[in-house]
Amino acid sequence: MKAITLLGSTGSIGTQTLEIVAQNPEKFRIVGIAAGRNVEMLAAQIKQFKPIIAAIFAEEKLPELKEAIKDVDPQPILLAGNEGVIEVARHGDAETVVTGIVGCAGLLPTVAAIEAGKDIALANKETLIAGGPVVLPLVAKHGVKLLPADSEHSAIFQCLQGVPEGGLRKILLTASGGAFRDWETEKLAQVTVADALKHPNWSMGRKITVDSATLMNKGLEVIEAHFLFGLDYSNIQIVIHPQSIIHSLIELQDTSVLAQLGWPDMRLPLLYALSFPERIYTEWERLDLVKAGNLTFREPDHQKYPCMNLAYTAGQAGGSMPAVLNAANEQAVALFLEEKIKFLDIPRSIELVCDRHRDRNRLNPTLDDILTADRWARQEVLQVTQELKSSSDVISLR
Amino acid sequence: MKAITLLGSTGSIGTQTLEIVAQNPEKFRIVGIAAGRNVEMLAAQIKQFKPIIAAIFAEEKLPELKEAIKDVDPQPILLAGNEGVIEVARHGDAETVVTGIVGCAGLLPTVAAIEAGKDIALANKETLIAGGPVVLPLVAKHGVKLLPADSEHSAIFQCLQGVPEGGLRKILLTASGGAFRDWETEKLAQVTVADALKHPNWSMGRKITVDSATLMNKGLEVIEAHFLFGLDYSNIQIVIHPQSIIHSLIELQDTSVLAQLGWPDMRLPLLYALSFPERIYTEWERLDLVKAGNLTFREPDHQKYPCMNLAYTAGQAGGSMPAVLNAANEQAVALFLEEKIKFLDIPRSIELVCDRHRDRNRLNPTLDDILTADRWARQEVLQVTQELKSSSDVISLR
Repeated sequence: MKAITLLGSTGSIGTQTLEIVAQNPEKFRIVGIAAGRNVEMLAAQIKQFKPIIAAIFAEEKLPELKEAIKDVDPQPILLAGNEGVIEVARHGDAETVVTGIVGCAGLLPTVAAIEAGKDIALANKETLIAGGPVVLPLVAKHGVKLLPADSEHSAIFQCLQGVPEGGLRKILLTASGGAFRDWETEKLAQVTVADALKHPNWSMGRKITVDSATLMNKGLEVIEAHFLFGLDYSNIQIVIHPQSIIHSLIELQDTSVLAQLGWPDMRLPLLYALSFPERIYTEWERLDLVKAGNLTFREPDHQKYPCMNLAYTAGQAGGSMPAVLNAANEQAVALFLEEKIKFLDIPRSIELVCDRHRDRNRLNPTLDDILTADRWARQEVLQVTQELKSSSDVISLR
Repeated sequence: MKAITLLGSTGSIGTQTLEIVAQNPEKFRIVGIAAGRNVEMLAAQIKQFKPIIAAIFAEEKLPELKEAIKDVDPQPILLAGNEGVIEVARHGDAETVVTGIVGCAGLLPTVAAIEAGKDIALANKETLIAGGPVVLPLVAKHGVKLLPADSEHSAIFQCLQGVPEGGLRKILLTASGGAFRDWETEKLAQVTVADALKHPNWSMGRKITVDSATLMNKGLEVIEAHFLFGLDYSNIQIVIHPQSIIHSLIELQDTSVLAQLGWPDMRLPLLYALSFPERIYTEWERLDLVKAGNLTFREPDHQKYPCMNLAYTAGQAGGSMPAVLNAANEQAVALFLEEKIKFLDIPRSIELVCDRHRDRNRLNPTLDDILTADRWARQEVLQVTQELKSSSDVISLR
């Protein structure tokens, strides 16, 4: 029986983790749990899973939570605020901590869990994209495992099991191509929010669906893959695979290629991050290659999707640049979703912000440097998009 | 540096093994070598690779071989005949024995190598298809590894590295579909030898190309996979994949599917069988998914390819039945290549011979039982095809 702590229990990763735990009570138990501000859902989860320790990030909600679970027996240790979440993350009994917290808020609890010797089921992308230069040395120092819980990195991780040290030659990250894969480049200037939210294969949140449409999601995954698997950026390649059946591939030194396949379903990589190294039997729908139809591949169009190159450039710059890229992207996408900027302003503003960060980029940043860079980039996007607005529409920024 | 003994050095597997060894002199050396009757080629190989021990199966060729290598220094131990080949197979220094001998002639040397504690790079299909019931207990007893050197089983073996005991749920063997994949079933009655020898993807010997056209090759691989990976026949499935890029797949208990891909090239599985568990860098052409084009899949047509069902039935019968199936197939294909029987007489005669073996099938055969069944089946095909000839052409045997 594996003891699990779940951070971000009321989000998409959180609820899917609990679904898996509930389906496999003989395999997993929840030791610690933490959520943002959804008291009702968190209380229900505490009642069902009886954790030893629980925390709510929004401190003002603590009394409400206490009241809601007053009949639970035994009572969990109840905490609140950032410190409370960190306490849950490092609590003694858990073997694996699922980091389902969104954004840089996930960084400090993840670091605490690593320092407490726990394996990390990695669902918070900032841990590596922003925090990579700080987190990786900690992972090595404490001898813990980073178990990717997203589809592409899990695919690579699954393929890598049994590959000896030094055997990996190249990573091929597959991308569906997003909402605009069949649009002409020229039409992207007129994209609406509704257009951008039509993802062909995966059902996901609004922000990540826009990231799919710009292919920034894939650019960020390239950076994450670099930190997770230790390859140079020149050996991490994106390939468009519209069917999303092959979740990614690796090429080995002898030219053999391994791939992981499945229907698009976020639960599978999450389950493997929890069950690793075991393979737990499930009744989930089994892949049928004949039904899946043709698997096709094409080169990504870098003209059409400038975000990919922005990500490679930020990744290669290193230091706090990937943190800036990620934060600028989040802010720019938020503005696009609020219809305050246009679709093509997303890459434009990210590029400008990254350019302005170049001179202040630190190659060996502290956690504080990273969090500062993250905040600065979000602010700077607001500044940059104001400048874009006040300048003439016909100016090409690229 | 891995010490290797090579049985069947002048055949296709043999020459490719030596090509790999020659390209990687710091990784591999040839300790023992044995061939059938090609003195000239064997002598050249002995000169180049300087084995400690060598044998020629055709005893009458020994003096010629001795003369041909008289200047080699140091001189290898030189042997001849079946006993000589067996002696080479069990010679002390080798870690891995490549069994490139064709047919049941490969069985006894393989058994000798296993009993001497050597890992087997398995290129002789009779070892498991015919010899499975005898060989598998020996493999377990001596704790040696069976390293598949053919494309499909190597793909499965590669995917299985890092999969824990009990994690395997299903095997998917891919098949190109052979020369007749786009022919209508009705036209198969008129197939010529030339038609059957046009394989779409792989360049192979005549016999194996006909096996591809009947899909018997895939049926035999199903039996081999059963013995190698321990799955029930109901969990080993054939899928038609005309491009031969995905060499086979495995499904795990959690529904995750792993696949091995590459250009069709026999050297890669052979290299991995030699280098296992290492991955050795090569300059071979790297897979390009975009260039490979669409990957497609369809159900195999059991009406059109009766050999598949014959193989499943023989595999499920067990005992010496798979040996009979294999021997009957070899004999029938030989008669077809000599234009003595028609294409559809291949499955017809195999089915009749298997039927006649049913009552005498032994579930726990000895090696002798297997060799006897093999000889009987070859003879019986001659008998059966005579009967088919003398009966009217309009009689349907199915």
